[in-house]
Amino acid sequence: MKSIFSKIIDREIPAHIVAEDDHFIAFLDINPLSIGHTLVVPKKEVNYFFDVDDDLMAEIMVFSKRVAAAIKNTTGCRRVGVAVIGFEVPHAHLHLVPMNGMSDINFANPKLNLSQEELAATAKKISTYSK
Amino acid sequence: MKSIFSKIIDREIPAHIVAEDDHFIAFLDINPLSIGHTLVVPKKEVNYFFDVDDDLMAEIMVFSKRVAAAIKNTTGCRRVGVAVIGFEVPHAHLHLVPMNGMSDINFANPKLNLSQEELAATAKKISTYSK
Repeated sequence: MKSIFSKIIDREIPAHIVAEDDHFIAFLDINPLSIGHTLVVPKKEVNYFFDVDDDLMAEIMVFSKRVAAAIKNTTGCRRVGVAVIGFEVPHAHLHLVPMNGMSDINFANPKLNLSQEELAATAKKISTYSK
Repeated sequence: MKSIFSKIIDREIPAHIVAEDDHFIAFLDINPLSIGHTLVVPKKEVNYFFDVDDDLMAEIMVFSKRVAAAIKNTTGCRRVGVAVIGFEVPHAHLHLVPMNGMSDINFANPKLNLSQEELAATAKKISTYSK
């Protein structure tokens, strides 16, 4: 069965997409740690992150770097942090999390409850910068 | 002034090195979240992770993939997680953290206090697998 991320990639379910190319898609996490928290997902469905092929593994960080710059411009955060956890959705993905201090990337923190309008407005800004 | 990581790279201070090539070094975190917690560091000293040049940014994940496989073989963990936080040492680095569940990569967790002998034994195993 297709993962929820593959359904987003195939436009079967909606998401607040901020960047996309032939191999990757980036969209806002719907349970974000902070405004601008984004997931980067290889379109090829692989469960474990480190099972991603070397060529895509190389490209994912270059793609993420571009998205991270757009997130930083949009949110004004000090840095964008990275996390790969891998026990949530069985489709490899990387979290880009706007950070102003070390504790901002703690996944035990309460998640923000943002409206669809707020998410859409943030996604629009990030996607403008990431072009 | 050189970062503590550059001093490790230049062998001015010791570390439990598990892998190294022309561009990167990987060594055990001395305040690990779990046995096998490793740092991957580009030899070129850059403060913010996403300021690393695109060519090195591409290579770092391929290098990390090899080290992560060695950590998984050594520790028997379910997955190796990734974190880039960037408020600790001003020299870009990536954490590879052995994980058996989501909370294992929470940096607010208490750190292990391992002896030099324990760290050396783990480093030796990981470095054998990462060759």
